[in-house]
Amino acid sequence: MKKIGIVDTTFARYDMGAAAIDELKSNHDGFKIIRYTVPGIKDLPVACKKMFEEQNCDILMALGMPGPKPIDKQCAHEASSALIQTQLMTNKHILEVFVHEDEGKDEKELAWLADRRAREHAINCLDLLFKPEKLIKKAGKGLREGFKDAGPLK
Amino acid sequence: MKKIGIVDTTFARYDMGAAAIDELKSNHDGFKIIRYTVPGIKDLPVACKKMFEEQNCDILMALGMPGPKPIDKQCAHEASSALIQTQLMTNKHILEVFVHEDEGKDEKELAWLADRRAREHAINCLDLLFKPEKLIKKAGKGLREGFKDAGPLK
Amino acid sequence: MKKIGIVDTTFARYDMGAAAIDELKSNHDGFKIIRYTVPGIKDLPVACKKMFEEQNCDILMALGMPGPKPIDKQCAHEASSALIQTQLMTNKHILEVFVHEDEGKDEKELAWLADRRAREHAINCLDLLFKPEKLIKKAGKGLREGFKDAGPLK
Amino acid sequence: MKKIGIVDTTFARYDMGAAAIDELKSNHDGFKIIRYTVPGIKDLPVACKKMFEEQNCDILMALGMPGPKPIDKQCAHEASSALIQTQLMTNKHILEVFVHEDEGKDEKELAWLADRRAREHAINCLDLLFKPEKLIKKAGKGLREGFKDAGPLK
Amino acid sequence: MKKIGIVDTTFARYDMGAAAIDELKSNHDGFKIIRYTVPGIKDLPVACKKMFEEQNCDILMALGMPGPKPIDKQCAHEASSALIQTQLMTNKHILEVFVHEDEGKDEKELAWLADRRAREHAINCLDLLFKPEKLIKKAGKGLREGFKDAGPLK
Repeated sequence: MKKIGIVDTTFARYDMGAAAIDELKSNHDGFKIIRYTVPGIKDLPVACKKMFEEQNCDILMALGMPGPKPIDKQCAHEASSALIQTQLMTNKHILEVFVHEDEGKDEKELAWLADRRAREHAINCLDLLFKPEKLIKKAGKGLREGFKDAGPLK
Repeated sequence: MKKIGIVDTTFARYDMGAAAIDELKSNHDGFKIIRYTVPGIKDLPVACKKMFEEQNCDILMALGMPGPKPIDKQCAHEASSALIQTQLMTNKHILEVFVHEDEGKDEKELAWLADRRAREHAINCLDLLFKPEKLIKKAGKGLREGFKDAGPLK
Repeated sequence: MKKIGIVDTTFARYDMGAAAIDELKSNHDGFKIIRYTVPGIKDLPVACKKMFEEQNCDILMALGMPGPKPIDKQCAHEASSALIQTQLMTNKHILEVFVHEDEGKDEKELAWLADRRAREHAINCLDLLFKPEKLIKKAGKGLREGFKDAGPLK
Repeated sequence: MKKIGIVDTTFARYDMGAAAIDELKSNHDGFKIIRYTVPGIKDLPVACKKMFEEQNCDILMALGMPGPKPIDKQCAHEASSALIQTQLMTNKHILEVFVHEDEGKDEKELAWLADRRAREHAINCLDLLFKPEKLIKKAGKGLREGFKDAGPLK
Repeated sequence: MKKIGIVDTTFARYDMGAAAIDELKSNHDGFKIIRYTVPGIKDLPVACKKMFEEQNCDILMALGMPGPKPIDKQCAHEASSALIQTQLMTNKHILEVFVHEDEGKDEKELAWLADRRAREHAINCLDLLFKPEKLIKKAGKGLREGFKDAGPLK
C-alpha cells in the first residue's frame, strides 16, 4: 500500500495539514497517511528526507505559511531550495504548499486560501502518485492552486 | 534508439511541450519521445531526475512559464538552480526553456514567444544529441532563442 | 543515552548557548549535552556536521546573532542554507536559533529576545527528540519563538 | 599529455573560445585542446563535468557573455554557482571567463574586453596547470583580467 | 605534525596570506604551513578541497578581497557558499577571511584592516586546531575580527 506523508509546521496560522488529509481521504483510498509536524519551514526539508528514508513514504506534501517580512521571504527561499534538493536526493516528489502571509487581503481570505491551496495540491499529489497521465492532458492550461486558474493564453 | 524527454507543467499558459515535440519530429527521426507533466516549475527538477534514472532518457527539455510576480521570479531561480544541479548529478543535458510572463507585451506575443523558443531549443536539443560539432561552428555568434539573434559584436 | 549538541559563536553578543543548556536541563534529563563554539555563523554548519559524525549527537541547536548590515544578512543566508544542507546529509534535526541584531529596539530587548528564543527552541528540541507527537497537536497554531505567538487565523 | 578543455556558448557575441585557444597555443605546448560549445551559460556546468569525466580534461576554461537584463544576471549567478560546484565534485579547476554585456561602453570596447579577458585567463590556466608557484609570487598584487590591474594598496 | 593551509588570491590588493603566515608562526609551532594561490575568490573553494584531499591539510584559511561592485558582492556570495559546502564535504574547518574593498574609508585603513583581520583569524585557526575549549569560554562575547569587538549586550 502506498504511503503519503504530510509534513507541516507549528508556525503556520492555519491547519493546512488537516485540510490536505481531509481532501486526500475524500478523493481516493488505498493509501496510508503519515504525519510529521516541525516548528518552522526550515525544518521541513530534513523532516521530508526522514519521511522518505525512515518511514518509506512514496510522496509528500510539505505545507507552511511564511511570514510577511523580508527575513521570512528569505527563509522560504532557503526552505524551497532544500525541498527541491531533497527530491533530487530521493527521486520522489514533494508537493510544496506554501501560503505567504501577504497573499491574502485579510485573515479570512488567508484562511480560505490556505485551505483551498492545500486541497488543490492534495489532488495534484494523488494524480502524481496514481494517475500521472491526467497531468499530461492539463499541460499548458494555466492552472493555479488556491486563487482561480489563469487559463491558457488567448 | 535515443530517448528524448519532454518535461512540462500545468501552470504554463501555452502548451510548449507540444510545440517542442512537433519541432523535434519535423527535424529528425531515430529517437523516442517520453513526456512527463508536473504541476509547476519547482516540480521539474525531480521529474527530470526520474526521467534520466527511471526512464533512461538521454537528454531532456524542461519547459515552463514563470509568472510575473517577485515570488515567481524566485521560484524560477530555485527551479533553474536545481535543473543545473540535476545535470551535474547525471552528466546529461537538460535544455531549460522558460518564458517569463512579462517577456511579452501581450498574450499574443507571449504565445508566439513560447512556441518559437520551444522550437528553437528543440533544434539545440537535436544538435547536442546528434551533431554537437554544429554548435562549435556557431560559438560566439550571439544566437538567441525566441526573439531575434543579437548577432556577433561589431 | 541521547546526546544533544549546542553549537554557538564568539561573534554573538549574548551567551545563547548557556541559556539553551539551562533550559534543556530544567525540563528533562536522560540526555548528555556537548558544546562546541566557533568564531562566526558561517563556521556553524561544519561544526554541526562534525558534532553529528564525530561526536554522535542525535540533535543540535545552532545559535547565532547575525549583525545588522547587508553583508551580515548575506552571511546569515549562507549559514542557514548550509545548516539545512547539513541536516539533509545526516538525516538529523538542527534547530537554528538566530537572533538578528536589528530585531530588538535596544540592547536590553535584544538580550531578552536572545534568551527567550534560545529557551523556546530548547523546548522544541526536546519535543522533536523525545515527544514528536506533541508538535502534531500544535500544527497550524501560529507559534513563534521569542516574541509572542501570532496565533491561528480568525 | 595534459588536456585543456575550452567550453563556450553560441549566446556569446564574441568568439572568446577562439581567443583563448590562440593564446594558449602561443604561450606553451605539450598539451591537447578539446572544445565543446553549448547554447547558453546555464549549459556550461554539465558540459564542464562531462569534459572532466568523459574527456579526461585536466583543467577547463568556461567562457560566456551574460546579457544586461536582471534575468541575465540571475542566470550568470546560477551558472557561476554550479561551475564552482562542478569543481568541488571533480577536484579540478575551471577558469570562469564571463564578460557581462554592460561592462563595455560600446560594442568595440566589449569585444576588446572579451578578447583580452579570455587571453589573460588563458595565462592563468597555464600557470595553474604547469607553474602554480608563479601565482604565489603574485598573491595580493591586485591583478585583474581584462581591464588594467588595480595594483596593491598603498 | 598538523598541516595548516593558506589559500589566497592574486586579485587581493594586500598580501593577507603573508600576514596570516607571520601571525601563525609567531604564536605557535609544531605545524607545517602549505600555501596555494589562485586568481580570484571563486577559485578558492576547489583550491581548498584540493588542499584537504591532495595535501592532507587539517585546517585552512581562505583569504580574499572582494571588489566594491554589485557583481563583486555576488562573486563573494558564490565563493562563501561554496567554501561552506567544501567544509561539509570534508568535515574540516576553513576560516574565511574576506575584506570587502568598501569596508575601509581609504587605502590605508583597508590595508590595516586586511592585515589585522588575517592575524585575528590566524589566532582563531590555532584555537580551533589546538585549543577549541578556549573558544567556548568566549561564547557570546561579541568578538569581531579586524575592527574592534562589539562586546556583550548590556
